[in-house]
Amino acid sequence: MQLRQFVLEGLGHISALVADDAAGVAAVVDPRRDVDLYLDEAKARGLRVSHVVETHLHNDYVSGARELAALSGAAHVHSAGAELRHAHQAVRDEESFDVGSLRFRVLETPGHTPEHVSYSVADRSRADEPQLLFTGGSLLVGAVGRTDLLGGDYAQPYARLMHASLHDRLLRHEDSVTVLPTHGGGSLCSKDIATTPWSTVGFERRHDSLLAIEEVEAFVRALLAEQPAFPRYFARMRPINQAGPAPLGGVPRPQPLSVQQVRTLHTGEGLVIDARRPEDHAAGHIPGSLSIPAGSSFGTWLGWVVPHDRPLVLLLGSVDDWDRQVRQALRIGHENVSGYLDGGLEAWRASGGPVEVGATISVSDLAKRLEREPHLVVIDVRQASEYEAGHVPGALHLHAGDLPDRLAELPRDRPIVTMCASGYRSSVAAGLLRQAGFGDVSAVRGGLPDWRAAGYPVATGEPAPA
Amino acid sequence: MQLRQFVLEGLGHISALVADDAAGVAAVVDPRRDVDLYLDEAKARGLRVSHVVETHLHNDYVSGARELAALSGAAHVHSAGAELRHAHQAVRDEESFDVGSLRFRVLETPGHTPEHVSYSVADRSRADEPQLLFTGGSLLVGAVGRTDLLGGDYAQPYARLMHASLHDRLLRHEDSVTVLPTHGGGSLCSKDIATTPWSTVGFERRHDSLLAIEEVEAFVRALLAEQPAFPRYFARMRPINQAGPAPLGGVPRPQPLSVQQVRTLHTGEGLVIDARRPEDHAAGHIPGSLSIPAGSSFGTWLGWVVPHDRPLVLLLGSVDDWDRQVRQALRIGHENVSGYLDGGLEAWRASGGPVEVGATISVSDLAKRLEREPHLVVIDVRQASEYEAGHVPGALHLHAGDLPDRLAELPRDRPIVTMCASGYRSSVAAGLLRQAGFGDVSAVRGGLPDWRAAGYPVATGEPAPA
Repeated sequence: MQLRQFVLEGLGHISALVADDAAGVAAVVDPRRDVDLYLDEAKARGLRVSHVVETHLHNDYVSGARELAALSGAAHVHSAGAELRHAHQAVRDEESFDVGSLRFRVLETPGHTPEHVSYSVADRSRADEPQLLFTGGSLLVGAVGRTDLLGGDYAQPYARLMHASLHDRLLRHEDSVTVLPTHGGGSLCSKDIATTPWSTVGFERRHDSLLAIEEVEAFVRALLAEQPAFPRYFARMRPINQAGPAPLGGVPRPQPLSVQQVRTLHTGEGLVIDARRPEDHAAGHIPGSLSIPAGSSFGTWLGWVVPHDRPLVLLLGSVDDWDRQVRQALRIGHENVSGYLDGGLEAWRASGGPVEVGATISVSDLAKRLEREPHLVVIDVRQASEYEAGHVPGALHLHAGDLPDRLAELPRDRPIVTMCASGYRSSVAAGLLRQAGFGDVSAVRGGLPDWRAAGYPVATGEPAPA
Repeated sequence: MQLRQFVLEGLGHISALVADDAAGVAAVVDPRRDVDLYLDEAKARGLRVSHVVETHLHNDYVSGARELAALSGAAHVHSAGAELRHAHQAVRDEESFDVGSLRFRVLETPGHTPEHVSYSVADRSRADEPQLLFTGGSLLVGAVGRTDLLGGDYAQPYARLMHASLHDRLLRHEDSVTVLPTHGGGSLCSKDIATTPWSTVGFERRHDSLLAIEEVEAFVRALLAEQPAFPRYFARMRPINQAGPAPLGGVPRPQPLSVQQVRTLHTGEGLVIDARRPEDHAAGHIPGSLSIPAGSSFGTWLGWVVPHDRPLVLLLGSVDDWDRQVRQALRIGHENVSGYLDGGLEAWRASGGPVEVGATISVSDLAKRLEREPHLVVIDVRQASEYEAGHVPGALHLHAGDLPDRLAELPRDRPIVTMCASGYRSSVAAGLLRQAGFGDVSAVRGGLPDWRAAGYPVATGEPAPA
């Protein structure tokens, strides 16, 4: 048996290829939307992908299962409860199927979603006893999948189902079984997920604090407490995955756009996404563009603050950034990336396009301004749990992802400073405010870690009610 | 914690990079000689290699630990009992060292070699309880490391040490601990090793039949029975690794040699290794060249039948084969690959060089010849265990690796047919015989599997004494 996991840092997504190498066949579990890497991996190892296997209808990304199954001729295995509206092999509790010597067994484990299944895998060339457990969004490493993504009404009943799925199904396995979840560190499908992408039943039994709570209602409270906010694009993913995502047919090649083309798009439905570094965006940017710096969180932030149906133009620090950012856009269902501004901001400037300047400030500048400017508004744009663990005294809490809906609450006649844990989310937030016409907006470089390191006072506790 | 294993199929060698990604530091365990892939992996993940860790003085390959430590500025950790004669961090039983949050603990586990140690690894960012066990050549997947590589006199006492290492040290760990050995499927460091490169303590406890034998002398007998023959180059590896392998400074680029240069080398100390497919070698080859077809077993067969100090010229099917075969040569200490014949056999032929023709035959040809030619000698050149499980009735057993030493036992006045399980080893063996002046030598295409599939009779059992 051969196993390889593929970790997407930004999404906290873990997919896997597992193979009976002697028979030359493989299964891919919970593939991301851009499926080329699975086909490359299979080819490099001389394997045929015979099964594409999914644990649940994903809320956090567009599935690549349908396309991978089509490209490889594999069966697309999914829970019958998912009621997929495209060709697939529907499986039910206790059913099994073979990938060479590997016997997959279906375990209904609802909770994270109602149709959720896990799969145990036994390599029958060694023993009938399972060695692997693909747990999807149920048992995670150091965590348990959240049960509130389909709406608050479902959160508690699904959490009760999760308790049963864990104790009556998953934890019945031997301590030695390797646990391979789909949601890993960085995923918003739960809180406090460890970055280690695998574990074992025994280790989690002893060290995942949620598993130690035997009483159902106490477990429900602990699971649902302090879950992070999640992006608005989540709401679209389940119906897309159920209906059947459109095949990508490969990741689009870099598409250069002239200044004139960008200007036309930008004055119409289009939106310029400034994927350069926060300091470059602050030093000069196209008015009305949004700062979402390139990096592993690009897709999540795009999905958080940009409507999926707007045509996008990327302003890139380097055309080398194209592939990675476009993949991230596609993974969350943003299909409409028109291209990138050829020649970058310099071409825009040279053709007489307007350039706006923002500001970033250091933590010492912030400290001085707080003394001098009593009207200064500091907005902490991190997750609530981060704010509660420590923030600049007097800072408001308003998660960057909620900004587009809550602009009306903010004063337009006062200077605003945005703050996060580095300078990434504060740049996104500052860009959103500037785009909405706020005049005096600055983002803090280095965020709370720099503030702490410089010895300035830190407050803790929940934000005051708005 | 992040973990990646690197599997070398031919050698059955498994190395690993394990990292505390939050701290950005990594350890590499038991690196192969060509270390570029570890540096590439660390760079791609933004990690600094702080420790290069070895479990024992390897018998089957030249270690890359010294060079990797030098290139990365890492500590080279090795058992104090190894008495390395170059700079290193010597560790003893129960000592520990940290790679970021990862605590490595040293466990003396002699048996495979006397200085052998294992390492448990706990990720203290989650718990003090170990999650990993790097077992080197002690506990393998479905097997246990052999104890006879340092000579038959040591085999039994070392096997007794191994029994204690397994039961008193390794199996004391929780069932949930992941087992990561250095010797995997295809390695000649034991028998019947599974191709799955990892396992868990609990699964092996229940399914590795050698672990079920509690009585020491019964374990010794079972461990030492039917171990495969191993290549003669093994004897050189331990002293080289103890003294400190010379740094490679990278894998040599393809070095084309003219026909004239090859002729000069070939009539002197040099040897032409024909790395083309067996059928191409049979159809026409340079007299005196040896057939060792390119592929994952190239290095093992080079180490088995070619003295390490002869300058080698490669005859390649494609210059693309250069890198992979040269790496394999270097891994087993063949430093002296002069280059490849530029233009291949065509250039040789065009310049008037002599070309010899061999023969391959099908299993049906073999069956007919066996009826017609009572003097035909069939030599089965596989491992003894493969021969015993099934062979052509009347075939001699003589492992291809032993041929160079046992040519005197073979009749020079009778036609000889060599046979293996595919056509690889039989081509190596036929080449050795032709090089030694045997006139009528043919290799069987498809070997015993084709013979069986065609329905011809198969004998089982031990070979008759020579």
